[in-house]
Amino acid sequence: MSMVTCIAPVNIAVIKYWGKRNEELILPLNDSISATLSTEQMHAKTTVMVSSNFTKDKLWLNGKEESFENPRLATCIREIRKRAAEAAGQQSEFVKYKVHVCSENNFPTAAGLASSAAGYACLVYSLAKAYGVEGDLTSIARQGSGSACRSLDGGFVRWRMGSKADGKDSIAEQLFDEDHWPEMRVLILVVNDARKKVSSTSGMQLSVETSDLLKHRVENVVPQRTKDMIEALKQKDFHKFAELTIKDSNSFHACALDTYPPAVYMNDTSHAIADFVHRYNKSKGVNKVAYTFDAGPNACLFLLEADVPEVLGSLELVFPPHPKEKSFVRGLPVQRLPAIQDAELVQGPHESGRIKYVIHTKVGSGPRLVKGSDVHLLNDEGLPKNVISQ
Amino acid sequence: MSMVTCIAPVNIAVIKYWGKRNEELILPLNDSISATLSTEQMHAKTTVMVSSNFTKDKLWLNGKEESFENPRLATCIREIRKRAAEAAGQQSEFVKYKVHVCSENNFPTAAGLASSAAGYACLVYSLAKAYGVEGDLTSIARQGSGSACRSLDGGFVRWRMGSKADGKDSIAEQLFDEDHWPEMRVLILVVNDARKKVSSTSGMQLSVETSDLLKHRVENVVPQRTKDMIEALKQKDFHKFAELTIKDSNSFHACALDTYPPAVYMNDTSHAIADFVHRYNKSKGVNKVAYTFDAGPNACLFLLEADVPEVLGSLELVFPPHPKEKSFVRGLPVQRLPAIQDAELVQGPHESGRIKYVIHTKVGSGPRLVKGSDVHLLNDEGLPKNVISQ
Repeated sequence: MSMVTCIAPVNIAVIKYWGKRNEELILPLNDSISATLSTEQMHAKTTVMVSSNFTKDKLWLNGKEESFENPRLATCIREIRKRAAEAAGQQSEFVKYKVHVCSENNFPTAAGLASSAAGYACLVYSLAKAYGVEGDLTSIARQGSGSACRSLDGGFVRWRMGSKADGKDSIAEQLFDEDHWPEMRVLILVVNDARKKVSSTSGMQLSVETSDLLKHRVENVVPQRTKDMIEALKQKDFHKFAELTIKDSNSFHACALDTYPPAVYMNDTSHAIADFVHRYNKSKGVNKVAYTFDAGPNACLFLLEADVPEVLGSLELVFPPHPKEKSFVRGLPVQRLPAIQDAELVQGPHESGRIKYVIHTKVGSGPRLVKGSDVHLLNDEGLPKNVISQ
Repeated sequence: MSMVTCIAPVNIAVIKYWGKRNEELILPLNDSISATLSTEQMHAKTTVMVSSNFTKDKLWLNGKEESFENPRLATCIREIRKRAAEAAGQQSEFVKYKVHVCSENNFPTAAGLASSAAGYACLVYSLAKAYGVEGDLTSIARQGSGSACRSLDGGFVRWRMGSKADGKDSIAEQLFDEDHWPEMRVLILVVNDARKKVSSTSGMQLSVETSDLLKHRVENVVPQRTKDMIEALKQKDFHKFAELTIKDSNSFHACALDTYPPAVYMNDTSHAIADFVHRYNKSKGVNKVAYTFDAGPNACLFLLEADVPEVLGSLELVFPPHPKEKSFVRGLPVQRLPAIQDAELVQGPHESGRIKYVIHTKVGSGPRLVKGSDVHLLNDEGLPKNVISQ
């Protein structure tokens, strides 16, 4: 019997992944770059237990049992077992034991905060720990959820698209660790939204099939932007970093809109946030804030530590919290300063509650094993300690 | 003394114009194609009076005096006078007389319904009538407002980008007249919107300067789509016409979004309308409705006469009118049929009033002179009959 529990971070792409060249192996059409967010504020947590007593692989996700027949889950466990068997040679009895997995996010899945990336990264990392698998795990996590491969390291991470047909060279690697740019801060703006979401998997696939602009983006726009982004990160040139981050977010959403039928992820509040950022930067004469949006309406803002108080103060003025929301800013503690004095900034203020709440966090490290007697999500029988009755 | 009054139509592009290669001459980066809408429902009306008694060129637009020093207005009057002088030879005394112009739209300018296109087309057409100018007027109207050149003819009109530096070959020409596809109907959906608008002139210019995707659109996407659109119109292939119209609208808005800072014209209601159209078409198994959006949130739907009753009925179910709105559907009379029976169609219904009202119209003819003693907007002294006190 063996039980391990790990946590893994969320990552936010600043050069976006949108479009696969191989659906089954999850091989992307372009390189992408992300920042790994601190696990202090947001993480997935996974407990893996391997036991000769188990009769079946089982999985509980956020308190609900899910099927391991999901092909992406099945691929991850199969690949880990294959590696474990290769390493163990003939003594591979342990590899044949069944596994119980229990996983939770400490943030709402519905918030659309790249929960699958953290989840798959945590699953693969935990399975690897349980089975004693060494070496690159990113090419396994990638097959669970593409962007999960970028959650296996801290700091700033590049997922190389690779060129091999089998995807062996489509792996993620750290560009700069979490101490490279310690002033970098992140605000996740959770936006009110009523719409039904187009899944990123199906939106992406349709974009590849129908968008005339996506082909141009992946071939002619992203390669140079990736180089420029690495240089901006290396130089810690925030102005340039912000410009590239903003442009790449809009380029991705442009290609999603150019899809037939269109895949629309940003809503009026998202666009109002983007507008706020442009006005704020214009007022400062230099880019102080960057925004990026994934396949949902929530904004992710990047900014430097010294600018957080005034940006948060200005944000609260333009997007007043709902009167009943008592913890509008969560995460890292911060003193809000009065809003910037600029009449041009305030288009509104908008009605209250358009932004539900803000998570204040920073760039952090990769997954890690957590120790202690009470950290596990499974009990000694391999059953979840917390189950939602169904 | 000479007084003429003319009316000119609105046009709606199905292949969009977005981006100039010459700002001053208003030369576009690609061909565009539009449908001219019937003047019965929407038109600009302009009275031009030329008199030796006038001391100054004067202009009243929707009841407010405007300056003729506006360079675009100045260009139009200068070009007309140049042509008139060329035609009149030495007897050009009349050409030197000053002009009074009064122009009105019979629809709200604020509705963002391409009012400048109808307005400049009407101005140039009326001036030409007053000064007896013959020949192509589209290259003059184009210098007032690019898309105005497409309002000088009825039916379906193509604006050729041309290749000459002086713009002489950047003219609009009729592809098919208004009787070619008599079943074609148009619904203008006027959408509630609170946002401040980015002008299309400045949005377009920024797109040319900053959008990586626009270059690809104008060079590699629009040329083939233009050919396909002409063929679809020729064959009266509605399914294909709708696909091309929808794709081109989204492609244009994608490039606007790819601009730095982004130019966002569609809002949540616009996207909900697009979603409604895709659901409706999917339910029918064939494209019954096309949507297109200009530089604003209002939708323009194309559909065939036989489908209007059910589409309107379905639209009213999904987007309920505001209870106080007593004439939700205006223009051509129509019987609404019950909504389509399809649970998938109705995402909502949305809160009432998201669509303010609908104008039901059809493809129509070009500008024309209107006769009669009481048609003029100027009195015998050359002053507007209706002035808004300022």
